[in-house]
Amino acid sequence: MARNTQVAADHNAPPVTRTLAKFVASHPSRGWGDAVDHEAHRTFLNWAGCAVGAARHEAAQAALDAAAMLQPAPQAAILGRSERVDMASAALVNGISSHTFDFDDTHLKTIIHPAGPVASALLALAEVTGASGRQVIDALVLGIDVSCRLGNAMYPDHYDRGWHITGSTGQMGAAAGCARLLGLDEEKTAMALGIAASQPVGMREQFGTMTKPFHPGAAARAGLLSALLAKHGFTASPKAIEAPRGYVQVVSTKCDWNEATDELGRRFEISFNTYKPFACGIVIHPSIDAAVQLRARGVNAADVERIELRVHSLVLELTGKKEPQDGLQGKFSVYHGVAAGLIFGRAGEGEYDDAIVTREDVTALRRKVVATVDDSIAEAAADVTAVMKDGRREHVFVEHAIGSLERPMTDADLEGKFRSLAEPVIGAARAGRLIAACRGLGAAPGVAGLVAAARP
Amino acid sequence: MARNTQVAADHNAPPVTRTLAKFVASHPSRGWGDAVDHEAHRTFLNWAGCAVGAARHEAAQAALDAAAMLQPAPQAAILGRSERVDMASAALVNGISSHTFDFDDTHLKTIIHPAGPVASALLALAEVTGASGRQVIDALVLGIDVSCRLGNAMYPDHYDRGWHITGSTGQMGAAAGCARLLGLDEEKTAMALGIAASQPVGMREQFGTMTKPFHPGAAARAGLLSALLAKHGFTASPKAIEAPRGYVQVVSTKCDWNEATDELGRRFEISFNTYKPFACGIVIHPSIDAAVQLRARGVNAADVERIELRVHSLVLELTGKKEPQDGLQGKFSVYHGVAAGLIFGRAGEGEYDDAIVTREDVTALRRKVVATVDDSIAEAAADVTAVMKDGRREHVFVEHAIGSLERPMTDADLEGKFRSLAEPVIGAARAGRLIAACRGLGAAPGVAGLVAAARP
Repeated sequence: MARNTQVAADHNAPPVTRTLAKFVASHPSRGWGDAVDHEAHRTFLNWAGCAVGAARHEAAQAALDAAAMLQPAPQAAILGRSERVDMASAALVNGISSHTFDFDDTHLKTIIHPAGPVASALLALAEVTGASGRQVIDALVLGIDVSCRLGNAMYPDHYDRGWHITGSTGQMGAAAGCARLLGLDEEKTAMALGIAASQPVGMREQFGTMTKPFHPGAAARAGLLSALLAKHGFTASPKAIEAPRGYVQVVSTKCDWNEATDELGRRFEISFNTYKPFACGIVIHPSIDAAVQLRARGVNAADVERIELRVHSLVLELTGKKEPQDGLQGKFSVYHGVAAGLIFGRAGEGEYDDAIVTREDVTALRRKVVATVDDSIAEAAADVTAVMKDGRREHVFVEHAIGSLERPMTDADLEGKFRSLAEPVIGAARAGRLIAACRGLGAAPGVAGLVAAARP
Repeated sequence: MARNTQVAADHNAPPVTRTLAKFVASHPSRGWGDAVDHEAHRTFLNWAGCAVGAARHEAAQAALDAAAMLQPAPQAAILGRSERVDMASAALVNGISSHTFDFDDTHLKTIIHPAGPVASALLALAEVTGASGRQVIDALVLGIDVSCRLGNAMYPDHYDRGWHITGSTGQMGAAAGCARLLGLDEEKTAMALGIAASQPVGMREQFGTMTKPFHPGAAARAGLLSALLAKHGFTASPKAIEAPRGYVQVVSTKCDWNEATDELGRRFEISFNTYKPFACGIVIHPSIDAAVQLRARGVNAADVERIELRVHSLVLELTGKKEPQDGLQGKFSVYHGVAAGLIFGRAGEGEYDDAIVTREDVTALRRKVVATVDDSIAEAAADVTAVMKDGRREHVFVEHAIGSLERPMTDADLEGKFRSLAEPVIGAARAGRLIAACRGLGAAPGVAGLVAAARP
């Protein structure tokens, strides 16, 4: 039944599978600078906060109800919940909940949300194997490196074609991380990557449904299972990533192999990970950032006569909803974002609650926002002036919003975001312990303490 | 972060997801002729034989060892083994073992092996839910219809691009079948199909490794989980199959929507399912068939002076190995195939055992086969003459081999094949009971008896 095919193929691709497998299996523990290691802890902290925050969401509930039909063994924790399930189900559900609010991390070059697939698989596996915190952080850095590098190799073609790149590269990162955590050698790590290569997850058509956060969850589970299979001798093609009928060439016409392997072990993609400070689309962030800065300067919502907002036309095209009626509509309203920033000093998931979006003082302030299009202002910028009732004017120009690569969130910012997500679910005391556990993970004997702190 | 893309997209695709969901949810039980129902039982029987036959293969062992790390609950059976695992793992392992010998069924128009993903998911789910045999057969027909129809819509482009179409359409069939078995309504069935649409499995680069049979196993598991999620309220796009950034358009440039929905409920793709009679590539089948017919006419290997074989050039190109050294090489030797057919009257997995391929009488007879290329003979045909030591000649011309659509395997043929696979693993008595249980499945109260018969 052999067929000749007409699809263009690169028969001379370099041995990417082998190169990445060797890197993942043999790169030394903490073989990077302090900045990378710090970013790994921030990445993990941000992921854990997102997962805890959405732990009671109906998507997490439905996924757990479905998993319950598999009568899962109580092996591993669901962050922010008391249920314990088998490793694969834990990886799935934590992966779902960490992406449910669309509030997780972003590798801006590829718009991959890298932690979901990788951290979700690693935490579940580490609980069962008793891995040290250092092993988890190492595996997180290496796993994220693999998925983001493969993303670099294929972006934007792969994304444009319709793949949700977080789920369709995440299984590779999860497999790499789990292979590392299991201590697989280069040969078996290549098999783990190979098995995972057959399992890209997720199409963009699913955006707006629960299946969007399902993608990182399913990718976590696929990567975990791939590593377990490889450990037990399951085989795959040793050229599964780069072969003409292998992963990359099947799901992308852009195949920039150098991106996959250049500067391996010297440039770590986790260095370019960013964290959303506000629970809405990125184009609103500069305006919210400006409002938060005005509040910090002492501008009080009650004293405001008018807020003059000058932004790029794209901002109003995408998020120009003047009278949002609920939380979801609020996410598409730069007016609500500015009001929330000035009143609360933040715009986390809580500030997109239906009750907040429709609250009287919020509604009143939002109506005082006068937006003007000015395409001389960059999409990533915002020019905001508060005009007070006494005629005083306070002006803020934000060139790059907080959370961008140019102005990364500080550790304190990240802690504030984490608390806004975790405290409603597990309370302030446990949230504090969980923050400490995430920050100290690299020096911890294991993940047991961290997992205990995340239980409600 | 919206991007304009350059990828051509069909924005006017018909509502395929909705149409298929309605069909799966509402088509009446046994809403087809007896021939379709009979084919469903044959499909199931053939699948079960393949699964039992490979139950001790190292791929099944590795998959079970990996699943054991998930501490699976004893919910569902692995055919041909005594272990019981959770539903998802049972679907995975039965899906792997049923495809391990490449000896399962074939939907020739798409070269999909349809039973693996669908039956593997259904048997596991039916054990847990206590579904009747009739419900399983109904779900099998409908599930296979969905995966093969989607295959028709995309083949050959999808396959040419590098997807292993069995795994990359099988998740849809498994989801459809499981949704039906769970009694989901049209709305939730559409969600099940939608969740599954994000999970195509498998690249052709994996051929020759254990990850090839992993594809139907992973597809079975993905489809099962999709249906369980939908049952519990998990959501997906209701246009997940047909949307521009949905399943079909992401994995195929050919999108023949009519193939997906034409004559729905009147033409059933399981009617075009076929079963391999011989455990080797399809081009050798006419030659083996001819040898088996010669044996049936009384030709005895010991009396043979020479066997004259005339075949299309493709046969020798693909399977011209004159002196195979082991079972795997034997599968690429038309000479061995003819010798096995004449000596044993069959060429099942057992006749490709290393010990058989190197056995003295087999080797001696194979050296008496003289092959001649004759391109006036079709690829699907073979012309074979046995020249006896006494000068007598016996001639057989096979236009279509046994197992083709033109000359389907009889029920007796299928039973013989089944026994050759199952008896070495579960013994003759249980194999007989399992055959009876498969054949009587549509009238059985459940799958418990069938599962018990498949235990070694």
